[in-house]
Amino acid sequence: MKISHIEHIGIAVPNLDEAIAYYENVLGLKCYKKETVADQKVTTAFIKVGDVKIELLEATSPDSTIAKFIEKNGGKGGMHHMAFAVEDGVAEALAECEEKGVRVIDKAPRGGAEGLQIAFLHPKSTQAVLTELCEDPSKK
Amino acid sequence: MKISHIEHIGIAVPNLDEAIAYYENVLGLKCYKKETVADQKVTTAFIKVGDVKIELLEATSPDSTIAKFIEKNGGKGGMHHMAFAVEDGVAEALAECEEKGVRVIDKAPRGGAEGLQIAFLHPKSTQAVLTELCEDPSKK
Repeated sequence: MKISHIEHIGIAVPNLDEAIAYYENVLGLKCYKKETVADQKVTTAFIKVGDVKIELLEATSPDSTIAKFIEKNGGKGGMHHMAFAVEDGVAEALAECEEKGVRVIDKAPRGGAEGLQIAFLHPKSTQAVLTELCEDPSKK
Repeated sequence: MKISHIEHIGIAVPNLDEAIAYYENVLGLKCYKKETVADQKVTTAFIKVGDVKIELLEATSPDSTIAKFIEKNGGKGGMHHMAFAVEDGVAEALAECEEKGVRVIDKAPRGGAEGLQIAFLHPKSTQAVLTELCEDPSKK
Protein backbone atom coordinates (compact mmCIF):
# COMPACT_ATOMS: atom_id res chain seq x y z
CA MET A 1 0.00 0.00 0.00
CA LYS A 2 1.09 3.55 -0.59
CA ILE A 3 0.64 5.88 2.40
CA SER A 4 1.05 9.61 1.71
CA HIS A 5 0.64 10.97 5.25
CA ILE A 6 -1.05 10.56 8.60
CA GLU A 7 -4.60 11.68 7.83
CA HIS A 8 -5.52 12.11 11.49
CA ILE A 9 -4.92 11.11 15.08
CA GLY A 10 -8.15 10.12 16.82
CA ILE A 11 -8.35 11.21 20.45
CA ALA A 12 -11.19 10.14 22.75
CA VAL A 13 -12.40 12.87 25.11
CA PRO A 14 -15.12 12.82 27.78
CA ASN A 15 -16.20 16.38 26.94
CA LEU A 16 -15.68 17.83 23.47
CA ASP A 17 -16.00 21.51 24.40
CA GLU A 18 -13.48 21.23 27.25
CA ALA A 19 -11.07 19.44 24.92
CA ILE A 20 -11.46 22.09 22.20
CA ALA A 21 -10.82 24.79 24.81
CA TYR A 22 -7.53 23.10 25.77
CA TYR A 23 -6.32 22.74 22.18
CA GLU A 24 -7.26 26.33 21.35
CA ASN A 25 -6.34 28.18 24.54
CA VAL A 26 -3.21 26.28 25.58
CA LEU A 27 -1.76 24.95 22.33
CA GLY A 28 -2.98 27.84 20.18
CA LEU A 29 -4.55 25.57 17.57
CA LYS A 30 -7.94 26.08 15.91
CA CYS A 31 -10.96 23.78 15.68
CA TYR A 32 -12.42 24.25 12.17
CA LYS A 33 -15.37 21.87 12.27
CA LYS A 34 -17.63 19.72 14.40
CA GLU A 35 -19.44 16.76 12.86
CA THR A 36 -21.65 14.02 14.27
CA VAL A 37 -21.12 10.59 12.72
CA ALA A 38 -24.32 8.74 13.63
CA ASP A 39 -23.01 5.39 12.39
CA GLN A 40 -20.08 5.55 14.84
CA LYS A 41 -22.08 7.19 17.67
CA VAL A 42 -19.63 10.06 18.04
CA THR A 43 -19.43 13.78 17.66
CA THR A 44 -16.05 14.79 16.24
CA ALA A 45 -14.14 18.06 16.25
CA PHE A 46 -11.31 18.65 13.79
CA ILE A 47 -8.11 20.61 14.25
CA LYS A 48 -5.49 20.90 11.50
CA VAL A 49 -1.79 20.82 12.47
CA GLY A 50 0.61 20.76 9.51
CA ASP A 51 -0.64 18.05 7.15
CA VAL A 52 -2.36 16.10 9.94
CA LYS A 53 -5.76 16.49 11.59
CA ILE A 54 -6.44 15.90 15.24
CA GLU A 55 -9.89 14.30 15.48
CA LEU A 56 -11.40 14.74 18.93
CA LEU A 57 -14.13 12.17 19.61
CA GLU A 58 -16.95 12.42 22.12
CA ALA A 59 -19.44 9.55 22.46
CA THR A 60 -23.10 10.28 21.71
CA SER A 61 -24.28 7.04 23.35
CA PRO A 62 -23.07 4.81 26.21
CA ASP A 63 -22.67 1.90 23.77
CA SER A 64 -20.34 3.88 21.50
CA THR A 65 -16.85 2.37 21.21
CA ILE A 66 -15.54 5.74 22.44
CA ALA A 67 -17.68 5.53 25.60
CA LYS A 68 -16.35 2.02 26.22
CA PHE A 69 -12.74 3.16 25.64
CA ILE A 70 -13.14 5.98 28.17
CA GLU A 71 -14.82 3.67 30.69
CA LYS A 72 -11.98 1.14 30.36
CA ASN A 73 -9.51 4.00 30.79
CA GLY A 74 -10.88 5.00 34.21
CA GLY A 75 -13.10 7.77 32.88
CA LYS A 76 -10.26 9.49 31.05
CA GLY A 77 -9.80 9.99 27.33
CA GLY A 78 -6.61 9.34 25.42
CA MET A 79 -5.18 8.56 22.01
CA HIS A 80 -7.62 6.18 20.37
CA HIS A 81 -6.48 5.51 16.80
CA MET A 82 -4.08 6.52 14.05
CA ALA A 83 -5.35 7.02 10.50
CA PHE A 84 -3.28 6.89 7.33
CA ALA A 85 -4.19 8.37 3.94
CA VAL A 86 -3.66 5.68 1.32
CA GLU A 87 -3.01 6.83 -2.24
CA ASP A 88 -3.92 3.58 -3.95
CA GLY A 89 -7.38 3.32 -2.37
CA VAL A 90 -8.79 1.67 0.76
CA ALA A 91 -10.26 -1.37 -1.05
CA GLU A 92 -6.88 -2.16 -2.60
CA ALA A 93 -5.10 -1.64 0.74
CA LEU A 94 -7.58 -3.96 2.51
CA ALA A 95 -7.04 -6.66 -0.11
CA GLU A 96 -3.28 -6.37 0.41
CA CYS A 97 -3.73 -6.60 4.19
CA GLU A 98 -5.83 -9.72 3.96
CA GLU A 99 -3.28 -11.29 1.60
CA LYS A 100 -0.59 -10.58 4.21
CA GLY A 101 -2.63 -12.15 7.01
CA VAL A 102 -3.48 -8.84 8.69
CA ARG A 103 -6.75 -9.00 10.63
CA VAL A 104 -9.19 -6.33 9.45
CA ILE A 105 -12.22 -4.90 11.25
CA ASP A 106 -13.89 -3.70 8.05
CA LYS A 107 -13.92 -6.04 5.06
CA ALA A 108 -14.87 -3.16 2.76
CA PRO A 109 -14.54 0.65 2.83
CA ARG A 110 -17.36 2.58 4.50
CA GLY A 111 -18.22 6.25 4.93
CA GLY A 112 -16.47 8.19 7.71
CA ALA A 113 -16.25 11.81 8.85
CA GLU A 114 -15.27 14.51 6.36
CA GLY A 115 -16.64 12.49 3.41
CA LEU A 116 -13.79 9.99 3.52
CA GLN A 117 -13.94 6.31 2.70
CA ILE A 118 -12.43 4.44 5.64
CA ALA A 119 -11.66 1.00 7.06
CA PHE A 120 -10.12 -0.15 10.32
CA LEU A 121 -7.41 -2.77 10.84
CA HIS A 122 -7.48 -4.80 14.05
CA PRO A 123 -4.98 -3.80 16.77
CA LYS A 124 -4.01 -7.49 17.16
CA SER A 125 -2.31 -7.19 13.78
CA THR A 126 -1.03 -3.61 14.04
CA GLN A 127 1.26 -3.62 17.05
CA ALA A 128 -1.64 -2.72 19.37
CA VAL A 129 -2.49 0.56 17.63
CA LEU A 130 -6.05 0.73 16.28
CA THR A 131 -5.30 1.70 12.68
CA GLU A 132 -7.57 3.35 10.13
CA LEU A 133 -7.01 3.62 6.40
CA CYS A 134 -8.58 6.61 4.63
CA GLU A 135 -9.20 7.74 1.10
CA ASP A 136 -10.66 11.02 -0.07
CA PRO A 137 -13.00 10.17 -2.99
CA SER A 138 -13.00 13.83 -4.10
CA LYS A 139 -9.26 13.54 -4.85
CA LYS A 140 -9.57 10.51 -7.12
CA MET B 1 2.72 29.11 21.71
CA LYS B 2 3.12 28.61 17.99
CA ILE B 3 2.92 24.99 16.82
CA SER B 4 4.01 24.31 13.23
CA HIS B 5 3.25 20.58 13.02
CA ILE B 6 3.12 17.28 14.87
CA GLU B 7 6.81 16.44 15.25
CA HIS B 8 6.15 12.80 16.10
CA ILE B 9 3.77 10.23 17.53
CA GLY B 10 5.44 8.08 20.17
CA ILE B 11 4.38 4.44 20.13
CA ALA B 12 5.46 1.95 22.80
CA VAL B 13 6.31 -1.51 21.48
CA PRO B 14 7.43 -4.66 23.28
CA ASN B 15 9.82 -5.60 20.46
CA LEU B 16 11.32 -2.96 18.19
CA ASP B 17 12.33 -5.25 15.33
CA GLU B 18 8.88 -6.86 15.13
CA ALA B 19 7.30 -3.41 15.12
CA ILE B 20 9.62 -2.15 12.37
CA ALA B 21 8.78 -5.26 10.32
CA TYR B 22 5.05 -4.45 10.58
CA TYR B 23 5.47 -0.80 9.56
CA GLU B 24 7.73 -1.72 6.65
CA ASN B 25 6.15 -4.92 5.35
CA VAL B 26 2.46 -4.16 5.89
CA LEU B 27 2.23 -0.35 5.70
CA GLY B 28 5.09 0.05 3.21
CA LEU B 29 6.84 2.72 5.30
CA LYS B 30 10.59 2.92 5.93
CA CYS B 31 12.53 3.06 9.19
CA TYR B 32 15.43 5.49 8.62
CA LYS B 33 17.17 5.38 12.00
CA LYS B 34 17.48 3.63 15.34
CA GLU B 35 18.77 5.54 18.35
CA THR B 36 19.18 4.66 22.03
CA VAL B 37 18.33 7.48 24.44
CA ALA B 38 20.11 6.39 27.64
CA ASP B 39 18.49 9.14 29.72
CA GLN B 40 15.00 7.85 28.88
CA LYS B 41 15.99 4.14 28.94
CA VAL B 42 14.63 3.49 25.46
CA THR B 43 15.75 2.49 22.03
CA THR B 44 13.82 4.39 19.38
CA ALA B 45 13.21 3.73 15.70
CA PHE B 46 12.06 6.53 13.40
CA ILE B 47 9.75 6.36 10.41
CA LYS B 48 8.82 9.47 8.40
CA VAL B 49 5.23 9.81 7.09
CA GLY B 50 4.46 13.16 5.43
CA ASP B 51 5.70 15.85 7.82
CA VAL B 52 5.36 13.61 10.90
CA LYS B 53 7.65 10.98 12.38
CA ILE B 54 6.46 7.80 14.02
CA GLU B 55 8.78 7.14 16.96
CA LEU B 56 8.70 3.49 18.01
CA LEU B 57 9.92 3.03 21.59
CA GLU B 58 11.31 -0.13 23.16
CA ALA B 59 12.38 -0.11 26.81
CA THR B 60 16.04 -0.85 27.59
CA SER B 61 15.33 -1.42 31.29
CA PRO B 62 12.39 -2.73 33.37
CA ASP B 63 12.22 0.64 35.19
CA SER B 64 11.84 2.59 31.94
CA THR B 65 8.54 4.49 31.67
CA ILE B 66 7.93 2.55 28.44
CA ALA B 67 8.32 -0.79 30.27
CA LYS B 68 5.82 0.41 32.89
CA PHE B 69 3.38 1.61 30.21
CA ILE B 70 3.50 -1.80 28.49
CA GLU B 71 3.13 -3.66 31.81
CA LYS B 72 0.07 -1.52 32.71
CA ASN B 73 -1.31 -2.23 29.24
CA GLY B 74 -1.34 -6.00 29.72
CA GLY B 75 1.98 -6.57 27.96
CA LYS B 76 0.88 -4.75 24.82
CA GLY B 77 2.26 -1.56 23.35
CA GLY B 78 0.17 1.34 22.12
CA MET B 79 0.19 5.06 21.41
CA HIS B 80 2.24 6.64 24.19
CA HIS B 81 2.61 10.36 23.47
CA MET B 82 2.08 13.13 20.92
CA ALA B 83 4.85 15.63 20.24
CA PHE B 84 4.42 19.10 18.74
CA ALA B 85 7.11 21.21 17.07
CA VAL B 86 6.95 24.69 18.61
CA GLU B 87 8.32 27.53 16.53
CA ASP B 88 8.83 29.98 19.38
CA GLY B 89 10.97 27.62 21.46
CA VAL B 90 10.32 25.10 24.21
CA ALA B 91 11.42 27.36 27.09
CA GLU B 92 8.97 30.06 25.98
CA ALA B 93 6.18 27.50 25.52
CA LEU B 94 6.81 26.06 29.00
CA ALA B 95 6.66 29.54 30.53
CA GLU B 96 3.33 30.13 28.77
CA CYS B 97 2.01 26.76 30.01
CA GLU B 98 2.93 27.51 33.61
CA GLU B 99 1.31 30.94 33.33
CA LYS B 100 -1.88 29.23 32.13
CA GLY B 101 -1.85 26.75 35.01
CA VAL B 102 -0.85 23.77 32.87
CA ARG B 103 1.02 21.13 34.87
CA VAL B 104 4.43 20.40 33.32
CA ILE B 105 6.66 17.36 33.80
CA ASP B 106 9.82 19.19 32.74
CA LYS B 107 10.42 22.67 34.12
CA ALA B 108 13.12 23.29 31.50
CA PRO B 109 13.98 21.89 28.05
CA ARG B 110 16.23 18.83 27.96
CA GLY B 111 17.91 16.80 25.23
CA GLY B 112 15.82 14.20 23.40
CA ALA B 113 16.29 11.90 20.42
CA GLU B 114 17.37 13.37 17.06
CA GLY B 115 19.18 16.28 18.75
CA LEU B 116 15.93 18.00 19.73
CA GLN B 117 15.26 20.06 22.82
CA ILE B 118 12.16 18.66 24.46
CA ALA B 119 9.82 18.96 27.45
CA PHE B 120 6.74 17.03 28.52
CA LEU B 121 3.42 18.39 29.74
CA HIS B 122 1.47 16.34 32.27
CA PRO B 123 -1.52 14.36 30.94
CA LYS B 124 -3.64 15.71 33.82
CA SER B 125 -3.51 19.08 32.06
CA THR B 126 -3.61 17.88 28.44
CA GLN B 127 -6.87 15.97 28.14
CA ALA B 128 -5.12 12.70 29.14
CA VAL B 129 -2.65 12.73 26.25
CA LEU B 130 1.00 12.74 27.34
CA THR B 131 2.21 15.75 25.35
CA GLU B 132 5.75 16.66 24.32
CA LEU B 133 6.96 20.00 23.00
CA CYS B 134 10.00 19.92 20.68
CA GLU B 135 12.39 22.39 19.16
CA ASP B 136 15.15 21.71 16.67
CA PRO B 137 18.12 23.88 17.76
CA SER B 138 19.73 23.44 14.32
CA LYS B 139 16.81 25.35 12.78
CA LYS B 140 17.14 28.40 15.06
